[in-house]
This record gives sequence, structure tokens and C-alpha cells, in this order.
Amino acid sequence: MARAMRVEHDCIGTLDVPDDVYWGIHTQRAIGNFTVSGIADSTHPQLIRAYATVKRACAEANAELGLIDRAKARAIIAACLEIESGALADQFPVDVLQGGAGTSTNMNMNEVIANRALEIAGHRRGDYAFIHPNDDVNHSQSTNDTYPAACKLALIDAIGPLAEQTRALGRAFHDLADRHADDVTIGRTQLQDAVPMTYGQEFHAFASFMKADCMALEHVVPQLMSLNLGATAIGTGICADLRFRKAATEHLARISGLPVTAAPDPVAAMTDMSAYIAVSQTVKNLAIHLKKAADDLRLLNSGPHDGFNDLNVPARQAGSSIMPGKVNPVIPECVDQCCFMVFGMDTTVTWAASEGQLQLNAFDPVMIHALLDGIDLMTRALAMFRERCVEGITVNVEVGRRYAQYSPSIAATLNDEIGYEHAVDIAKEASVTGRSVRDIAGERTDLPASELDALLDPITLARRLGQTCREHRDA
Amino acid sequence: MARAMRVEHDCIGTLDVPDDVYWGIHTQRAIGNFTVSGIADSTHPQLIRAYATVKRACAEANAELGLIDRAKARAIIAACLEIESGALADQFPVDVLQGGAGTSTNMNMNEVIANRALEIAGHRRGDYAFIHPNDDVNHSQSTNDTYPAACKLALIDAIGPLAEQTRALGRAFHDLADRHADDVTIGRTQLQDAVPMTYGQEFHAFASFMKADCMALEHVVPQLMSLNLGATAIGTGICADLRFRKAATEHLARISGLPVTAAPDPVAAMTDMSAYIAVSQTVKNLAIHLKKAADDLRLLNSGPHDGFNDLNVPARQAGSSIMPGKVNPVIPECVDQCCFMVFGMDTTVTWAASEGQLQLNAFDPVMIHALLDGIDLMTRALAMFRERCVEGITVNVEVGRRYAQYSPSIAATLNDEIGYEHAVDIAKEASVTGRSVRDIAGERTDLPASELDALLDPITLARRLGQTCREHRDA
Amino acid sequence: MARAMRVEHDCIGTLDVPDDVYWGIHTQRAIGNFTVSGIADSTHPQLIRAYATVKRACAEANAELGLIDRAKARAIIAACLEIESGALADQFPVDVLQGGAGTSTNMNMNEVIANRALEIAGHRRGDYAFIHPNDDVNHSQSTNDTYPAACKLALIDAIGPLAEQTRALGRAFHDLADRHADDVTIGRTQLQDAVPMTYGQEFHAFASFMKADCMALEHVVPQLMSLNLGATAIGTGICADLRFRKAATEHLARISGLPVTAAPDPVAAMTDMSAYIAVSQTVKNLAIHLKKAADDLRLLNSGPHDGFNDLNVPARQAGSSIMPGKVNPVIPECVDQCCFMVFGMDTTVTWAASEGQLQLNAFDPVMIHALLDGIDLMTRALAMFRERCVEGITVNVEVGRRYAQYSPSIAATLNDEIGYEHAVDIAKEASVTGRSVRDIAGERTDLPASELDALLDPITLARRLGQTCREHRDA
Amino acid sequence: MARAMRVEHDCIGTLDVPDDVYWGIHTQRAIGNFTVSGIADSTHPQLIRAYATVKRACAEANAELGLIDRAKARAIIAACLEIESGALADQFPVDVLQGGAGTSTNMNMNEVIANRALEIAGHRRGDYAFIHPNDDVNHSQSTNDTYPAACKLALIDAIGPLAEQTRALGRAFHDLADRHADDVTIGRTQLQDAVPMTYGQEFHAFASFMKADCMALEHVVPQLMSLNLGATAIGTGICADLRFRKAATEHLARISGLPVTAAPDPVAAMTDMSAYIAVSQTVKNLAIHLKKAADDLRLLNSGPHDGFNDLNVPARQAGSSIMPGKVNPVIPECVDQCCFMVFGMDTTVTWAASEGQLQLNAFDPVMIHALLDGIDLMTRALAMFRERCVEGITVNVEVGRRYAQYSPSIAATLNDEIGYEHAVDIAKEASVTGRSVRDIAGERTDLPASELDALLDPITLARRLGQTCREHRDA
Repeated sequence: MARAMRVEHDCIGTLDVPDDVYWGIHTQRAIGNFTVSGIADSTHPQLIRAYATVKRACAEANAELGLIDRAKARAIIAACLEIESGALADQFPVDVLQGGAGTSTNMNMNEVIANRALEIAGHRRGDYAFIHPNDDVNHSQSTNDTYPAACKLALIDAIGPLAEQTRALGRAFHDLADRHADDVTIGRTQLQDAVPMTYGQEFHAFASFMKADCMALEHVVPQLMSLNLGATAIGTGICADLRFRKAATEHLARISGLPVTAAPDPVAAMTDMSAYIAVSQTVKNLAIHLKKAADDLRLLNSGPHDGFNDLNVPARQAGSSIMPGKVNPVIPECVDQCCFMVFGMDTTVTWAASEGQLQLNAFDPVMIHALLDGIDLMTRALAMFRERCVEGITVNVEVGRRYAQYSPSIAATLNDEIGYEHAVDIAKEASVTGRSVRDIAGERTDLPASELDALLDPITLARRLGQTCREHRDA
Repeated sequence: MARAMRVEHDCIGTLDVPDDVYWGIHTQRAIGNFTVSGIADSTHPQLIRAYATVKRACAEANAELGLIDRAKARAIIAACLEIESGALADQFPVDVLQGGAGTSTNMNMNEVIANRALEIAGHRRGDYAFIHPNDDVNHSQSTNDTYPAACKLALIDAIGPLAEQTRALGRAFHDLADRHADDVTIGRTQLQDAVPMTYGQEFHAFASFMKADCMALEHVVPQLMSLNLGATAIGTGICADLRFRKAATEHLARISGLPVTAAPDPVAAMTDMSAYIAVSQTVKNLAIHLKKAADDLRLLNSGPHDGFNDLNVPARQAGSSIMPGKVNPVIPECVDQCCFMVFGMDTTVTWAASEGQLQLNAFDPVMIHALLDGIDLMTRALAMFRERCVEGITVNVEVGRRYAQYSPSIAATLNDEIGYEHAVDIAKEASVTGRSVRDIAGERTDLPASELDALLDPITLARRLGQTCREHRDA
Repeated sequence: MARAMRVEHDCIGTLDVPDDVYWGIHTQRAIGNFTVSGIADSTHPQLIRAYATVKRACAEANAELGLIDRAKARAIIAACLEIESGALADQFPVDVLQGGAGTSTNMNMNEVIANRALEIAGHRRGDYAFIHPNDDVNHSQSTNDTYPAACKLALIDAIGPLAEQTRALGRAFHDLADRHADDVTIGRTQLQDAVPMTYGQEFHAFASFMKADCMALEHVVPQLMSLNLGATAIGTGICADLRFRKAATEHLARISGLPVTAAPDPVAAMTDMSAYIAVSQTVKNLAIHLKKAADDLRLLNSGPHDGFNDLNVPARQAGSSIMPGKVNPVIPECVDQCCFMVFGMDTTVTWAASEGQLQLNAFDPVMIHALLDGIDLMTRALAMFRERCVEGITVNVEVGRRYAQYSPSIAATLNDEIGYEHAVDIAKEASVTGRSVRDIAGERTDLPASELDALLDPITLARRLGQTCREHRDA
Repeated sequence: MARAMRVEHDCIGTLDVPDDVYWGIHTQRAIGNFTVSGIADSTHPQLIRAYATVKRACAEANAELGLIDRAKARAIIAACLEIESGALADQFPVDVLQGGAGTSTNMNMNEVIANRALEIAGHRRGDYAFIHPNDDVNHSQSTNDTYPAACKLALIDAIGPLAEQTRALGRAFHDLADRHADDVTIGRTQLQDAVPMTYGQEFHAFASFMKADCMALEHVVPQLMSLNLGATAIGTGICADLRFRKAATEHLARISGLPVTAAPDPVAAMTDMSAYIAVSQTVKNLAIHLKKAADDLRLLNSGPHDGFNDLNVPARQAGSSIMPGKVNPVIPECVDQCCFMVFGMDTTVTWAASEGQLQLNAFDPVMIHALLDGIDLMTRALAMFRERCVEGITVNVEVGRRYAQYSPSIAATLNDEIGYEHAVDIAKEASVTGRSVRDIAGERTDLPASELDALLDPITLARRLGQTCREHRDA
């Protein structure tokens, strides 16, 4: 049996739209036009929710200013609230890589809201004489001012869980550091044996990275709060009541609980992609930190016989079909690959941000898609890294202790006592014989045993700057 | 009602696997381990099909060499053929961004083949004593030699449709060029008015790009045909019969119809990512060409009143909610964004290709995912560009003619006749008055009218090098 | 005549060093080792100066804490001051792309300071028994803590002129905007004619970009002030007096006048490249803005006959050897290319920042080189853009006025008065006939002439949001 | 005393040019216009030489076709030959990052050739009535056809030494491989102990990379041989005699000894940047290989006590100011940084190649600069890597042997003999006790000692595929 259709029209002509959907002709055309990624707008629920919130704020402003009547506004607002709650999620089928600077997503939103509002108001879908997608839902608005607003709110929404997972991974590294605050090992610079440190310090550094990333994420959010509602097509506010900019921004601030403001230069704001670049860089820097942690863990886990063997990442699956018992650090390897995807994201965003022309950058859609995709990927990678790897790491305490105790470079600490040249001799003998600097120094110098013990104690050397690893925990 | 389970074990322990699936414990663990992209291997059917083909070739080789018995081999081969035909497509659920260098995909393949082969042979799923995922399906193989082989075949498979769509877009530009072989317009360098050309030449250049890209794609395929079967874990062939390398490669060549060969240095081949880099660059260069065409069309379509207005891309949807009648070049804009995604792909691939360590690059999975994703995206973008834009372009013939006829720079062609200085004077007067160089030269010089007509005829000027645009068509 | 030499030794052996240079054996070896870029450290005077400042602060701290004697410290400090003033600039010949994490630059600095201090103290060069490069100049220090400190101060130093030129270009755009605050033209979105704006608004947007970039540069500076003095080799402070960290940091703050602080986690700080990434992103975003301005000017300057022809960038040189009178926008084109170099810089920095291992990132040298190079390039590009282009731009006021007055899309403003459908009819007639919306509306509607004039006045439409362009000037 | 000046004029006005230089007004203006990189064209002697060669070929063609008279042509040709031989190298001062698509470099070349030809012909510099930079030297030419031709020849010129150094490094790795063809060590995948291989195989793989890169470089050269002489401004050949294209191309082929051809579609060729992208990718892939080798050497050199310690890169300088005797792998670290620069190069080239508009890509200058810079850097990095590192590597033969002999994973080779489960038990015992698989298998199995020796001999396991490393040497 044929699907029931309704006929809609636009400036290009008429088109059949399935009668059981809430979208209209503009969405229907866009579905046919953009057939590239196969990924629908609905895969980014943050964007759908945020756009409905923006539309609601605009409806409130329009109603307050008497630009649309109260009854219409009530129905529109009710429809927005439904979408914000997650309903109608399947009604946003347009390809995320759409042309038109987001117009299709805006019209999709206008149409779904209009048709749902019509139902709420007791009309049938498509009866736009009563509530019109453009004249009513989109009143005082343009794609060019509302779409970026929705994108920015969506990013803020997505950054929340990212920050939470960043914090959680930081805590996991902190816990690991705490468990090994007193376990020494060798620090390595340029992959060469250097001087003693604790495993606690090693893991604590990763926690510090995560802490810094959390702060960076918090810091980037305000850059997303400068919006451009009421600027309409090019930043001059044509077709919008002059009071709308202030009213809509205030309603949005109230509704969202975010201190959003109107950009000082609405023409510049129309093409300024700085906020997207800032988000991209912040996520990229987080990825750099994650990659560092994953790479270091892979190094420290190397061996077990013929590598560093400082620690063991938990065995999560068999590593080889032919080498029995081989277990690979699959989780850090997966993390690395997520980071490579994020580096690609940054390239995509940089390109799109750099290709605006005159009064508009038409490439918001690919930027917001790439950013939300990258943020979601990082969020899940952080959780996986923590749950499937970091929380299960075990340290080969004895291996580290031996590294630290038998490190010839420990002789450096004798420089002040016996002179650099003599220290070098002791270091060389330690290196050649495999004996400890402590033992050789006991024979070769007349420093008292207690002083030598104090000078050469690895844990003391590791903590010269008072780093117990616990101090910054709750700072 | 609880789902029926079977218990499987590996070197880590035991795990419940749903009884109604063909995969086994290794796949089940991988599902739990890799929870980042939410994109399953099965979204790349080229990879699934190619891997089954590789497994089939290996089974043939194992049987031929007497390494597994014929009855097992027959069942394994039958299972492979089913997968190659598209069956069991939902049995490959592992995240595309998996750690482990593809081991999970290999084991997923081994397990599905084993279990389906068991069924075919009249055994129940999980009865690995009869056909074992590792000992039988994976016999003489390792992930490190079979996974890259499957990836390369998958890329060849994906490049086919890409080349076809590239060719089709080239033909569409050729058709457009043919329709406008005699229509002149102004050529522009550095966005400044230069000298006459035909629209045919303009579009023909895009066709030439596509032709060059087709050749480049054809050229990159042989680089994907150097495989490493029989090299097993690190390129030394441990655990594989010495005859297997040759036999498996030959069977694969026969089955696939592709002249695949064994790499000359199996240890180097294990970590050489050159083929992926070459594919990435080839697709990137195609994207650069596509971007050029899309950007030029957007420029030539600019206006219509206050821009170039050389041509009209077809109207596909209303361009603005507030400016009535405005139509935007949404399809070229969509194409541009696909190109930005491909530029990101190249970054991701470059990173992953550059991070191999010692005897393996563990990051094949992200490379093959990014490449297949990018190739598929380009394939669809080419089709969309052709169908929804290029085939519908109309040229404003009169606009171009006026540009060409009234171009002051046309005076350059008089240099040889009347001297450069005099030519400049005529050009200047043409520029200031808006009259044509032809008219002014008629008054100011004593060159015969017929000679002037010949010298200054735009179409003649455009075709000095004999470019009718039709010549290279079938070259 | 042979150049006089002195013999120096290190842990590897002995080497001849020219007697007339201030550097020593470590520098001499590095000259021979690193032969890749051919660019000497001395091409970055900011780095040389900053490193001398860091050494001076450390000498002050060492003296204050009694770690080296006052006389030595005085000579060292005097030598540092000379270098800070620009003297001895030719004594830093090591390749900027050196391995060793900056050790060669540190030792070059230690040796030059030591030898100059020896001269000042009445000794001959090479007499390290009196003042030793390591034991005295480098006392309590390591490359790993002092080199990054010098790099960060150098970046702050380089950012100053960059911000100044950014500000100056912003002012130039402001002046241009002021001169054209009342001149209307057409705004274009997606390169399609949209609605009226003023040239003032167009240029003002560029000024707003520059203002935002200045703020971003100011904002990134504090991220460069977290230093790690006293952390020595790996962040544990081995070989440094425990009081040194605080003392050296405070002396450096006093000397430099910058509120530098000691990083809270010295181990994490050793490998955290966030500050470099932040600088790179900030400079990249400035480049994105510059590219936008350069590209828009090239578009608006297109034609003159067959393009936008909104304005004229000043003619700086003949544009073509064969087309008489053709003048190209060479300065914006040069700016674009500088931006492409900066995009490359960001790639280089991202790579280097992501490849740290364990307790050190050995790739500081390429990061600081790429960043200083990129910052200097941008600084000069900004000045060139302003002086050779922006300050000389002339606007084709009549062209813009005609665009604005005859724009059919202006009919959008009649929507509320006569209904959307009627407005479309008027727009269509305007588009087809080339008459103005004002004239047609005068005939077709019964709106009073005065109201029509008010509604359709381009300057009024452009300034709906009160944008006179002058308001933000001194904000 | 004031420098003597001559006055020259162009379409913009007049300008003083120092009388002692060979360049003229166009160069002089360009010097003043482009003040960004501070790097002169003359830093790329390949470009200067190649451009003179192109000019010479054009002069020959012009003379042959009677377009300029023989006497002029002789003087022009003589001047070109001087420049090709390296004379007048200081006469090309224009910034490499010039706007104008290379027009300034072309005019610089035209002017220097004209003035030197004037001298040769017995005239004074500036006497352009006799030999004119545009009318004579540039006859039948445009920047848009000659500049890319010169760039491509320059790249071919630069690729020669790059390929030679690539080959030399390959030979060095081959020599190293030969010296260690019989020395076993452990292969590692995912940084985990895997199965035995020889050091010879490890180094041979690097040689294979270099060999592949040489072939890739040879392969990219033909892509640089498709030129566009005679296409003049936009590819239509305006202002050039119709016979010139063929004649000039043939003369250039004869003079250069390179089989250069005329591009089939001259309009497309004007904006097709494929050849630059191909060069960039080829150099990038070489960098990826170099980075792999440098990174692996750094890993294998790690320790010496607490790392892999497979080999020692030669000590080139003291590694630390505070840790006595520490030596770092500074040469591989320097190589890595050169690779990061090349990755940045690829970004810059990709951007510039993607930003062409309509009939021209104006960004050739930054592409050729970045490519020549990157190629020169790689060339020197290869030489340094070979001379200062690879040729001096020593292998810790005993360390490798122990790794190979005591590797538990060697038990995999017993699978076929004693069954997988039993093999696992032996492997586990070996891993726990530190005894060799050979010893345990001798006790636990009844396999004859001679068979066990044969099965478990590391060198045999390493060479299963017949890899003696010597075979491919001269292939």
C-alpha cells in the first residue's frame, strides 16, 4: 500500500512529503540533495536539543514583543520542549555534511516544530496558514544567526561529559600515583637512563595533564557564549525587530542557565570562527596529553623480558593467534588511534574555518559535525582508557627499585662531596661491573656510611622538591 | 527469556558468548574492549569481503600443501564464499578503531568462518575440536600478514567505484564543455580580467582534472598488490610452511583476478605504509581538483546582479528563510565540505603511518577506516556533484560574450601591429568609455576592418592553440 | 696563516676550538653534528636574549644562596647583560634544528658566558678553572629546565611586536571603516547578493578580528609564564639546592618584569607542551583572520570590468608582462602565502609536541624555531599588509550604491507591510527589469512615498542594529 | 657618496634603480613590496638556474621562428648561460613569498638577462631600446607558463641530490645489515617480545625503505616534465606565435636533456598542482621512513641499563650538563625534527595547491619555496644521519643473542611437534624460571636433542624465508 503523502510547495515548486513525518518540503529536498556522508543530523542529539532551545527562546522573545501571537507561541514552545526532551529524534534526517550553511537543518527544525505545534494546537500537519515554519517559527530569525547559536550550545553540552571523563581519568591516575608514591624507578630522558623518581610522580604527571585539560575546557566554554541572535542574514538585523536581539539573548540565557551574550560586532561575528578553532585546539591538546600517556604506558609495559618492563597494563584479550601467551597493550593502542582521528578533526576544522567569504562562512555544518564527533570520540576514549586500562595497571615494584638502585647516574649527587671527576670514576665502575654506586662509594670514599645512605637513597633523590604526589590532589 | 549462551575460553579465561552468533570469545572480548567510535567493521563491507577472500586463498594453499585436511578446507572455503557474497554481514561488530593491529578483526573472521564451516560440515557452533579458528582457519597465518592483505584488497575494491564516478563526472564536464565550445567569456587570473577563452575550455579543464585523477587511481592500484602472506608475525615466516608464501599468493591472485605478488623484503613490508600514504595522497589530490571545480563554480555563479554571473548552478532548494527567491550553490558547498573531511583523513593517515615501532605498525585499523570512509565519501560526493549540479548548469552566454568583447585587455593582440604604446592607449580608452577595443581601433588605426575583425575576434583569440575542447575527449 | 686554536676536552675527548671565539668544545661539536637547516640559533635574537636573562637570574640566585662566589657571579652577570644588550650575537652558530633537546644551545650559552666572564674577570678564554661553563654558569641548572624557560620568554618577547602590528592593522581597518561609514553596498552570503550594508561595516569587521586577536595574544602570554627552574633533569630537582627553585624564579620575575611562577607539578611541566600548542593556535587563528581579510579584498577588488569591483587595492607593481595595464592584488596574495606557512608551522608544532617520551620531550628546538619563525613572518606580513595595501584602498562608492539601491532582495523589508507574496512579485520585476524596488513599489503599492523612502533606504537598512562602525573604536 | 642611480619606468610610474645592479624597475618595486620572509629567491639556486635555462630555450625558439633577431638572441643566450653557470647569483633579491604568482621573479630574470645581454652586446645597462626585458627576453612568454616550467625543472634538479643521499643511506644500512647478517635478536611487535630475527633483517628493512624511496623519487620526476610553454596568460596562447609552443618545448628538451613535453590541455595545466602534490607526498613518505628508522634506533639504543640496549648509536657529544657520562641519540633526534618540518611543508603545499581560482593558482611561489626548502633539508638530514650516526652504529651482539635464546615465545615453533597446549606449558616455565625453551624442552619432551637444536635455533627461525639480507642488495 502506498505511503500517504501531502503536497507542499516552496519557491522552486511542489513536492510530495510523506504524511506521517513532521518535516516538510525544505527537509524533503535536502534529503534528496545531500547524499554524501549517510550520517543524519540526528546522530548529534546535542545539536538537535540545542536548536530547539534556541527556537524556544526566540518564540518567547517574539511573543513578549508581540511579534507573534501568544497562542501560536505557546504551541511552538510546547513543541520545542518536546524536542529538547528527546522526542521526535528521528525527524532530523538531513546529512550532516549539507551545503547551505545550515539552512536545511534550520528549516528542518522550523518544519518539525511547526507541524508538531500544529498538532498540539489541534490542527493537522501541513496547515501552515495557522503556524508557518518561516513566518512564525523562524520569525525575526535567519539560519545565519540561529544555527551558529545552536552549534555553540551543542558544543557546550558536549564538552560537559568530556570534562567529566577527563576529570575521572585524572582521578584514576591520581589513585594509581597514590598507591605508588613510595615506589622508586628510573627516570628516562631521551630514552636514556637518567635519575631516580617514583612511579607516583610518573602517574601524577598524567593526572596533572588531565587537570590542566579540565581547566582548558572550562576556559573555552565562555568563548562559546558570544551569540549573534537578531543579526539575521548578514549582521545588520534586517527583518528583525530592533528589540529582538536583546530579548532573545536574555530569554536564551534564562532558559539555558548560561550567561550568553550578544556579540559586540554582529557583522564580524557572522564570519568569526575563533570559537570553533579554540574548541578544536583544546580537544587536540587533550589528545596530545592522552597520546603521551598511552605511548608512555606502552613503553613502560614493553618486554616483558626484552623491554622496559616497568609495569603491566591489564591483559584484555589474547594478543596473537600464533605466539602463545603474548598479550598486547590494545587499549592504549586504541587510544592512540582516537587521537589520530582528533588530529584529523583539527585539520578539517581549520580548513572549514579558513574558507569563509565576505558576509558568511558557509561551512559551519562540517565544523560542528567534526567537532561533535571528535568530542564524543574523546569522551568515550577517556572512559575506555580509565576502565579498561589505567584502573588495572600493576607496577613491577622490584624492577623499578633495581633500576633506581643500580643506576650509575645516581653518582651525580656525589659531585659536591667528592668532585665531579671522582664521581665519574665511580659511575663508570658501577656501569661496567653492575654493582651499585652505594657499594663502590663505600669502598672508594671515606664518606660515612650513613651519609652515603642518605645521599644515595633513591626515594630521597626522587623527592627533593617535596613531591609526594599527594599534595595537588584536591588543589 | 534469557538469551542462550555458550562458554568459550582463551588464554585469559572463559566467557559467555551468545549461542546465536557466529563469532566467538575473541570477538566477544573485543566488543567489550573497544567502545569508542560506535562504528562496526561491518560498515566497511569491502574489508569483510576482502578478508574472506584472503582466508579462502589461505585455505586453498593449506589444503594444497597438506597442512589442513581437504574436508576441513572445503567447509572453510564454503564459509568464506558465503561471506564474500555478502552473507553474515552482521557478524562483524568490532569497533573500527580497535587496538591490537587488527587482531580482533582477524579473530572475528576466523571465528565466524570456523563456526559457519562447522555448521556446513554438520557440527554445531563452538565445536572447535573439529574446525578451530586458530589452528585451522588461521593456519600458516598471522594477523600481521593477512590483515594488511585484506586492507589492500578492500582499498582496491573501493577505488573501483571511485574511479567510475570520477570518470562519470569527467564525462559530464565534457558534455558541458561541448555544449559551450563556441561560447566565449573572459578568462581571469588572480581574479582580474584577463583575456578571452570559451566556456568550453573552462569546463574542459575540469574534465582534464578528472581524467588525470582516473589515471592516478589506476596507477595507485598496483602499489596495493604487493602483499606479505606467509610472513606471519614479524616477516620471518615463523609457524608457516616455507611453501605457503608462494602458494597462498598464487591462490589469491587466481581467486581475485588481481596480479598480487609477495613483497621482496617481508620484514620491511611489515612496517612499510607507503601504499596507504599513496592512496591517501591520490584521494587528496582528487579532492583538491574537486574543490577547485566547486569553488570556481561558486565564483562564476556569484551575483546574479552584483557578482560574476557567468553561469547558474541549478536551484536545488530555497536558499534563505528571509530573502525571497535567493538560491544558493548548496551542492558545490557540500562538495567543499567533503573535501575538508578528506584533508582531515590525510592527516589521520599520515599520523598513523608515522607511528610504527620496530617490527610492526599497530595502527592499520585507523588507517583503513579513515581511507575507506574518505573514499566512500568522495565517491558519493562525485555522484552528487554530477547529478545535482554539473548536469544542470546553464551558461549566461550573452554575459560571457559581452565580457569577452568589451575586454580592454584584448588590445594586447594589437601589440605587434601598432606597437605596445599605442595599444595601451586604445585599451585605456576602452576601459574608461566602455566602448569596445574593436570600435576604437577602427577609428584610431588604419588597419582594415577585416583584419581588425580577425585579430580581435574573441573566439579566435580563445582558440589560438587549436583548443576546440573536443579533441582530447576520447584520447 | 693558520687560525689560532685552543684545545678543549669533554667526556668524549678533545677538540680544537678557534681561539677567537667565545664558544667552547660543546658548541664546536654541535656545529659539526647538526648540519641540516643551515639556520643558526642567532637568527632568533629573542631566544639568545631570553636565555641570557635566564642565566643571569640563575647566577643571582646562586650567588644569593652562596652556591657560587660573588666575584664569579658578578662576572657572569656582566657577561649576561652584554648578551642581553645584543652583543656577541654572532657567537651562537648552532643549527636551530639540533638534537639533544636544546643541550647544545644551553652549552653554547654557558660557554660564551663563561669565556666572556673570564675576560671580564681578567682571565683568558678557556681558563675554566676559574669560571666553568657547567659548574659555575650552569650551576643548579639543567638544559631541561632552563631551555624551555628561555623559549617561553623568547615567545613573550616575539609576541609583543606581533600584537603591536595586529593592533596597527586593526587601526588601519578602523580608519578605512570610518571613511566609509556612510557608503552603502551589497552584503553577500554564499557569494550571492543579499542585503545592504556599509563598506564601513565590512572593514570594521576586519578591525574586530584584529581586536580579538590582540586579546587572544594577551591572553596566551600568561600561559608562557609557568616555568620550571630548579627542576633540573627530570623534574625532581636533583643536583640543585632546594631553595634554588624559588630564588631563581623570583630573580627572573624581578629582572624580566614578568610575573613568572614555578609550575605546580615539576615532573608534568617537563613534558607539557600546552603552552606551545596554545601559541601556535593563537597565531594560526590570527592567520585565519588575515587570510579572510586578504581573500575578501581580492574578491571585492575582482574585475574591474567583469568582477565585483567594489574597491581597488593600491597598484604596487605591473601585473603582467603581456597584458598592458593589468594590476594584480599582489600584497593580499603575499599575505595568503604567509598564512599557508603558518598553517605548516602549526602542523610542525603539533607533531613535535606530540612525540615526547617518558620524562622529556626532546623536540623543543624545532617547536621554538617554527614558532619564532611563524610569529616573525606574521609580524612582517601584518605591517606589509597595512602599509602596502590597506592604507591605500579606495572604494568605488558609486558601484556599491548602485548594488545596494537596485538589489531586488531589498524587497524583503516590505514583507510586513504588503505581505510576503506581493513582495516577491516586486522583487522579481526588479530583478528582470533592472529597475529599483523603490520605483516599482511606488507604482504597485499605495504606501506613501515618504514611508517607502524610509523603508527602502539602504543606509537605514544597513544600520538597523545601530552600527555606525565608530562605536567600538575605543572600547 | 651617493650610490649612482638610473631611472626606469613602468605602467605605474618611474623609480630609481641602483646603477650597479642588473635588475630593473619591476625587481626594485618587488623588493619594496614583499618584506615578509627575508629570504631571497637566490637562496634557491636550482630555481635561478632553471629559469635561465627556460629563458634560453625560449630565446632559441624565438630566434628560430624569426620572432626576435639573431643578434639579440645571441646576447640573451649568452646572458642565460652565465646565470646557469652560477654567475649573477646575487642579482635575485626578491622575497620567496612574493605575491603575483611569480611575476616578480620572472621580471627579475627578464631584467637581469636583458641588462647582462646589453653589456655583452656592447650597450649600457638600462638601454632597453636595444634589448627589452618584456619585448625581447620575455617574447612569446608569460609568467604563467614560464615560472611553473622553471619551478618544475628546479625540483628535478633538487631531487637528484636527494635521491643520491637516499641511495647512500640505503647503502649504509645495507653495510650494517651485512655486518650483522648472522647476529640474532628478538623481534618485537607492539613493543612486546615476539620471535627471533637478525639485526641484519632489522637494518635491511631500512635499506629497503630507502630503495623504495629512490624508486618513488625516480617515478615522480616524469610528472614534473609536462610543461606549458607557449600557453602564455591563461592557456590560450594569446600573444605567442602558434609555432612557439612546440619549438620552445623542443629546445628546452634538447638543452636540458630531459624529455619534457607540452601538456595536452593547456588551460587545465595552468591550474593543475598535481605535480607539486606528488613531490610533496613523495618527500613526506621518505620522511615517514626516516622517522621510523630514527625512532627505532632511539628505541633500540634505549637504556643502556634500563632499556632495550640492543645497539649503540655513536656518541657525538656530551648529553647532559649534570649527569656525567650520559650520551643521547642526538642525531636521530635531529632527523626526527627535520621530518616534522617536512610534515609542515606538506601542509603548506596542500593549502597553496588548493586555493587556485579560475584561470590561475597565484600561490606557486610558496609551494616552490616550501618544496625546495624541504627537499634540501631532507638531503642534508640524510647525509648527516648516515655520516654521523648509521655508519657508526655498534650492535650489542651478546644482548641480542640472549634475547633470542631465552625468548619464551620461541616455543611457538614446537606447536606442530608436541601440540599447542604443551608448547604453552614450556613457554610459561621458560618465562617464570628464566631458563631457555631449549633446555626445558630437552627435559620435558622426548624429541631428540639434534631435532630440538634445529627447531629452536634462533638463526634458523629468523631465516625461514631465506632472508640472508644479502640477496636484494643489488637487485
